[in-house]
Amino acid sequence: MKITAIMGAGSVDQAYASKFITLGYEVMMGTRNVTEKLAGNVKDGYGNPLFSEWYSVSKTVKLGTFEEAALFGEIILNVTMGVNSINALKMADEKNLNRKILIDVANPLDFKNGITTSLLPELSNTYSLGEEIQQTYPDVRVVKTLNTMWNGLMVNRAMLNGGDHNVFICGNSSEAKGKVKEILKSLGWPDNNIIDLGDIISGRGTEMYLPLWLRIFGATGNGVFNLKIVSNNESSV
Amino acid sequence: MKITAIMGAGSVDQAYASKFITLGYEVMMGTRNVTEKLAGNVKDGYGNPLFSEWYSVSKTVKLGTFEEAALFGEIILNVTMGVNSINALKMADEKNLNRKILIDVANPLDFKNGITTSLLPELSNTYSLGEEIQQTYPDVRVVKTLNTMWNGLMVNRAMLNGGDHNVFICGNSSEAKGKVKEILKSLGWPDNNIIDLGDIISGRGTEMYLPLWLRIFGATGNGVFNLKIVSNNESSV
Repeated sequence: MKITAIMGAGSVDQAYASKFITLGYEVMMGTRNVTEKLAGNVKDGYGNPLFSEWYSVSKTVKLGTFEEAALFGEIILNVTMGVNSINALKMADEKNLNRKILIDVANPLDFKNGITTSLLPELSNTYSLGEEIQQTYPDVRVVKTLNTMWNGLMVNRAMLNGGDHNVFICGNSSEAKGKVKEILKSLGWPDNNIIDLGDIISGRGTEMYLPLWLRIFGATGNGVFNLKIVSNNESSV
Repeated sequence: MKITAIMGAGSVDQAYASKFITLGYEVMMGTRNVTEKLAGNVKDGYGNPLFSEWYSVSKTVKLGTFEEAALFGEIILNVTMGVNSINALKMADEKNLNRKILIDVANPLDFKNGITTSLLPELSNTYSLGEEIQQTYPDVRVVKTLNTMWNGLMVNRAMLNGGDHNVFICGNSSEAKGKVKEILKSLGWPDNNIIDLGDIISGRGTEMYLPLWLRIFGATGNGVFNLKIVSNNESSV
């Protein structure tokens, strides 16, 4: 029984939590303040149920502080908003993160002007959120993946194009990437749809794709899409 | 007989020039110094022939200064390196550009440290090359397109995946985008493979995709790939 901590408790986190539970994982979601989270009565504007409504029918998911969740988890999933990620991880406490694999699916979107098509300037082009987390926590094995698509697709690849589209993976530790690939496979992503781009610095490319993702979403009104890399090499890209 | 100026005379420009000639266009390529360009005897390292060798078998292509080419062209194609684009257009002279459509296929890659995976910081995230050209030349109708793929694919879509992959188009003038779509069609791109992202600001997304393009190229050793946007909407993305 694998034990997973999910940093965050929004709709993306809920999608992961539900999926991991169905896969037989034990899951604790981490949030800033458990009481406030359960008492929250403002909907998110995307038609999602209140957290408490979702949580009441997901009783096998545990809920704790960031610190409790990180202590609980063998693997940490960062699904916080990019601008808050380091703060959430600080609340989780380094000793609860060290030597663990941290799967970073967050993006450093800049929401300071509301709806965004831009990244936080300090985390774009020559730096990235994945690198910032890796530099802040050198004893954590950060693996960047799944940040290039709508959360429904992350956990349900088959809903689109017969499942034939791509996910990227980046990180400094080949061993950690190997373990995360196993998790991706359990989520439904076969080897030949996973593109290993290299070290955590290469994650810059995946984060910088977000402005294009957001423009495609804006132009088509549809977020249920993904990239398929087509090439002149039939066996792989 | 349409008359096209191509700003630049490198291998990408040559691919365009050859293609436009076969389509019955008159083409003049613009360069900084015609004599030096023809006398150049340093190969580009990618196995391409010297410019003079290519040019000697492409006699129907005209060669002139940036100014002569811009004066000659009804449509301007910017295929210069992004870091040089504004300088090249200054040499072309504003009066030779005004009221024309400028198709911007360049990217603001930052080569100052050699091989690059980054954009010029001043032309990334909250600004872009397409916007810089549009702001510098408000009477030019800038249309950003074709900058998201290897040049061989730009002019030969069918070589990959039965031709089923995507190109983006961005610009402030719907009329200009309509005319550029006709050119894209003549290059082999049908309507349903062209994704209109909106105004020239939306071109930021296409330029910011380059770091991911470069990482995929680096990881796979193959530049002959492109994006196909797969979605849950069969008729379009």
